[in-house]
Amino acid sequence: MKEIIAIVRMNKTNATKKALIEAGAAGFTATKVVGRGKMVVDTSTIEDRKRELLSMTSEEDRANAEILIESFLNGARLFPRRMFNIIAHDQDVANIVEAITVANRTDNHVGDGKIFILPLGDVVRVRTGETGDEAI
Amino acid sequence: MKEIIAIVRMNKTNATKKALIEAGAAGFTATKVVGRGKMVVDTSTIEDRKRELLSMTSEEDRANAEILIESFLNGARLFPRRMFNIIAHDQDVANIVEAITVANRTDNHVGDGKIFILPLGDVVRVRTGETGDEAI
Amino acid sequence: MKEIIAIVRMNKTNATKKALIEAGAAGFTATKVVGRGKMVVDTSTIEDRKRELLSMTSEEDRANAEILIESFLNGARLFPRRMFNIIAHDQDVANIVEAITVANRTDNHVGDGKIFILPLGDVVRVRTGETGDEAI
Repeated sequence: MKEIIAIVRMNKTNATKKALIEAGAAGFTATKVVGRGKMVVDTSTIEDRKRELLSMTSEEDRANAEILIESFLNGARLFPRRMFNIIAHDQDVANIVEAITVANRTDNHVGDGKIFILPLGDVVRVRTGETGDEAI
Repeated sequence: MKEIIAIVRMNKTNATKKALIEAGAAGFTATKVVGRGKMVVDTSTIEDRKRELLSMTSEEDRANAEILIESFLNGARLFPRRMFNIIAHDQDVANIVEAITVANRTDNHVGDGKIFILPLGDVVRVRTGETGDEAI
Repeated sequence: MKEIIAIVRMNKTNATKKALIEAGAAGFTATKVVGRGKMVVDTSTIEDRKRELLSMTSEEDRANAEILIESFLNGARLFPRRMFNIIAHDQDVANIVEAITVANRTDNHVGDGKIFILPLGDVVRVRTGETGDEAI
């Protein structure tokens, strides 16, 4: 059992959701975060982010525009991202990671995101009391 | 040392908080997330969620109503949930898991939530510099 | 490879960000959470929190004032905190923990925060497909 954490662009939220469902991910949560990666100090990255903010077209992203722009302009250099937390059987991890990668990879633009894989000790389904792989 | 992550219904937030405090959980955080589990593709689950949204009575939940309803209606099939992150001594994990389960189990309605248990390498209390079990 | 999770006071957000960047943290995310620690049952802690809420001066914190005050007054005894999730090479963990500690330690006031260190199985950089330490 593993927890897969994926940090992706806001405008890749729906593509990532679809990819996870198609890859058979049994359950996941999504959360708004702000963050930065290793390369964001590169000034060309700032220009990439400006283009990214201007290109957002989903309703949810427009609703968040004020927060996004403030975050961009205040010099904190943290960018809005969507974090997915996915629970997976060991044998499904490679497929899920591949699905997230395909959904989020752009034409070599810094900021495509990262995926982390953490060991998971146990899982409990509250409704039934099932544990371990049966509860995933 | 373990990290316990619990994903529960929004309207079980206060019951879960009380259960954690009564079970002696030393410290925890709560975060709003959206998510889906394995069974949410079942259409009867959608009806369960409608009833759940309509039955919320706490001030905080009403304040979030607009977000909740949009999330419900936009077809994304992700539902608002509260995520708790709890730090626990190894010997307290079973008690805390039981307390969360009791507080959140309904009459076999899909969506009661899940609990994950992750290994924890170390803990540091910033104020004192204590580490390990002493810092929990 | 480790995931470092730090829970800090809201008004230490910028100091923590600067400390992480200066300590060479390659990438991190920040999220708003509410939470409580072991000592918050002490009534003197409540007074500390009142002073803390009144002393916030950053624009972001003022913008969150309504939520903060409601959280304070509704008796839930959960306090707003900023959670940082940081990805680190094993050899950088001690430096990063020290940097967070220095940025957040006050004059022995309860509520300075906690740091958790979790094992990390793997990391994938979406843009390049790099894995492991190269992807951090």
